[in-house]
Amino acid sequence: MGQGILYLLPSDFGEESLILLPAYAIDIIHSLDVFIVEDEKSARHFLKRIGYKKSLNDLTLFLLNEHTSSSDITNYLEPLKRGMNVGVLSDAGCPGVADPGAEIVRLAHQHSIQVKPLVGASSILLALMASGFNGQHFVFHGYLPKERTARIKAIQRMESDAGIKNQTQIFIETPYRNTNLFKEIIEICGKNTMLCVACDITLPNEFIQTKPIEEWVRDAKSKSGQVPDLHKRPAVFLIYR
Amino acid sequence: MGQGILYLLPSDFGEESLILLPAYAIDIIHSLDVFIVEDEKSARHFLKRIGYKKSLNDLTLFLLNEHTSSSDITNYLEPLKRGMNVGVLSDAGCPGVADPGAEIVRLAHQHSIQVKPLVGASSILLALMASGFNGQHFVFHGYLPKERTARIKAIQRMESDAGIKNQTQIFIETPYRNTNLFKEIIEICGKNTMLCVACDITLPNEFIQTKPIEEWVRDAKSKSGQVPDLHKRPAVFLIYR
Repeated sequence: MGQGILYLLPSDFGEESLILLPAYAIDIIHSLDVFIVEDEKSARHFLKRIGYKKSLNDLTLFLLNEHTSSSDITNYLEPLKRGMNVGVLSDAGCPGVADPGAEIVRLAHQHSIQVKPLVGASSILLALMASGFNGQHFVFHGYLPKERTARIKAIQRMESDAGIKNQTQIFIETPYRNTNLFKEIIEICGKNTMLCVACDITLPNEFIQTKPIEEWVRDAKSKSGQVPDLHKRPAVFLIYR
Repeated sequence: MGQGILYLLPSDFGEESLILLPAYAIDIIHSLDVFIVEDEKSARHFLKRIGYKKSLNDLTLFLLNEHTSSSDITNYLEPLKRGMNVGVLSDAGCPGVADPGAEIVRLAHQHSIQVKPLVGASSILLALMASGFNGQHFVFHGYLPKERTARIKAIQRMESDAGIKNQTQIFIETPYRNTNLFKEIIEICGKNTMLCVACDITLPNEFIQTKPIEEWVRDAKSKSGQVPDLHKRPAVFLIYR
């Protein structure tokens, strides 16, 4: 008997979200009974939203987040070894990309289990597309340091690398700290450095703008200027020169 | 009168490809009459494949590739300024990400034209998800240098950075040089360095495997080992330690 396939399922961005998976991916999800999920409640909501037809009570959901132990993750391979297909579903976006999931994928490869990534939304990639910045060379840094001095150094290094390496610099912040990070960036960076802010991507209030720092500064001072309220809204920041 | 919206449309991966866009993105494409495309023939094939209902003769297609002049690209903004929505369609994957498109997006932002990226397939992102490598920190290098000595140095630097920076290293090659690049990687890198090869992603012959270099070397020597024929097949390479 062959082993099952580990499918990687990008999810959408909450209750207001459009369905962001292509039809073939939705069909595959409908065929699955076992899911490895970041959060049980949002997984059930997501499955309901895409019209998952089986009883949600018959589902097997395994939890995968920062609290899951390595031995638990290893146990999640059991259904795959018995030949069942399993889906990894992240909370918002793509499993394994700025989200849990890499560990189970790594184990699957070790056990020669086939891994199939399905197409869906990644706010990092959508932000990069929409920034107009260099898409031939880019780097994603994840979250910046929480400590202010280290964070400011990280911003300065990214600004420098953007020019020296001709490389788009992509990073994120915990949403309730977005406003603070935005202020720091426009204070620290040079006036000609380009900043893209991409917020609530694919949602009704999507905001994506690329401007030089001097325009962001000017707009932040003027009442009519377009500076988004980023507080608690998921956002991606990109710097380029 | 308001300006039009510049939509960024990920395309699929050729005649054998599944439809890789979600329904909302296909609906938006159906509403458009003007497209900026990398290649006219493949754009027409793609539109036909997703069931585009308007006569393909009534379409306005603007060409955008490495031969397009900056002044031509500036002219492509005209329909947007007149209030028409326009779609940027790349040949395979996402506009602006290892593909043309960034220039028109940059101009759109300069003219305060709204840019909306639609969800679809990026082989880079799918490969990263499926690699099991670090998705919190990663870098995309595009194509490696053509000159052998420079390319070998680039591979060595990536291997080193993967460890020092704890950062997944992602790169691509012109498909007819894939086999050569694969040989170089497994010759140069240390036996415990991890290599993921992701080839023909989303296509019927999709091949995605992550293994330490020593296993790739062993499999390349044995007849039964799984080493893919990468010649002329689109592939993404990823290194991590």
